[in-house]
Amino acid sequence: MLKIEHIGIAVSNLEASNKLFASLLGTECYKTEEVESEGVTTSFFKVGESKIELLEATNPESPISKFITKKGEGVHHIAYAVENIKAEMKRLKSEGFVLLSEEPKRGADNKLVCFLHPKSTNGVLIELCQEIK
Amino acid sequence: MLKIEHIGIAVSNLEASNKLFASLLGTECYKTEEVESEGVTTSFFKVGESKIELLEATNPESPISKFITKKGEGVHHIAYAVENIKAEMKRLKSEGFVLLSEEPKRGADNKLVCFLHPKSTNGVLIELCQEIK
Repeated sequence: MLKIEHIGIAVSNLEASNKLFASLLGTECYKTEEVESEGVTTSFFKVGESKIELLEATNPESPISKFITKKGEGVHHIAYAVENIKAEMKRLKSEGFVLLSEEPKRGADNKLVCFLHPKSTNGVLIELCQEIK
Repeated sequence: MLKIEHIGIAVSNLEASNKLFASLLGTECYKTEEVESEGVTTSFFKVGESKIELLEATNPESPISKFITKKGEGVHHIAYAVENIKAEMKRLKSEGFVLLSEEPKRGADNKLVCFLHPKSTNGVLIELCQEIK
């Protein structure tokens, strides 16, 4: 893994949380993006080489809605930047990790992404991200 | 905030999780340290400019024991590196964040630390860290 690409945080009200995180981090949100396939609106803050990604559900079937109903607001996933997502998916699968898709999917912020099931990773939902060049 | 210093992950069995995260991250744990005052044994992995810190409770009264009983294994806190922890504590308090101590405390990995109450930060326990030089 090259670095922590971002930490995804599930929030109920993106507008209020954008203000809260701008105040906490001392920097403004630099981008907001809707990812229709995941049922979320996301916003991004830079912290060093990493980002904080806030996620608000756009519908009740969104994974973020379900997460907040079950666990409340909080850290939803940790995303690691990888050079070659297909090679990492193959390596991790061979080491016993459970991938949530067989192929990389298009994610927010111009990335190819794949998630690992938290049951295979100590309860932490892991995302792999490869930048689309 | 200068960067994400580390992400703290609560685990039930540090030895097993050290193996799991070495396999996930493709790098070995480089340090293990007991923080008696917090009732934890910690281990560290480098990922880019940040670290993953695994935390195992050393007694049932440890905050990590209580966290796992309530929520299961998973992300426990996000730590941000700051230049001047006292100045950041003062700034954040004035912006309405709730500090868990009035003064910085000695944390793992040669740091002065202070935590922010998750009720004031969207359910995410936040740690500020200043390196002790």
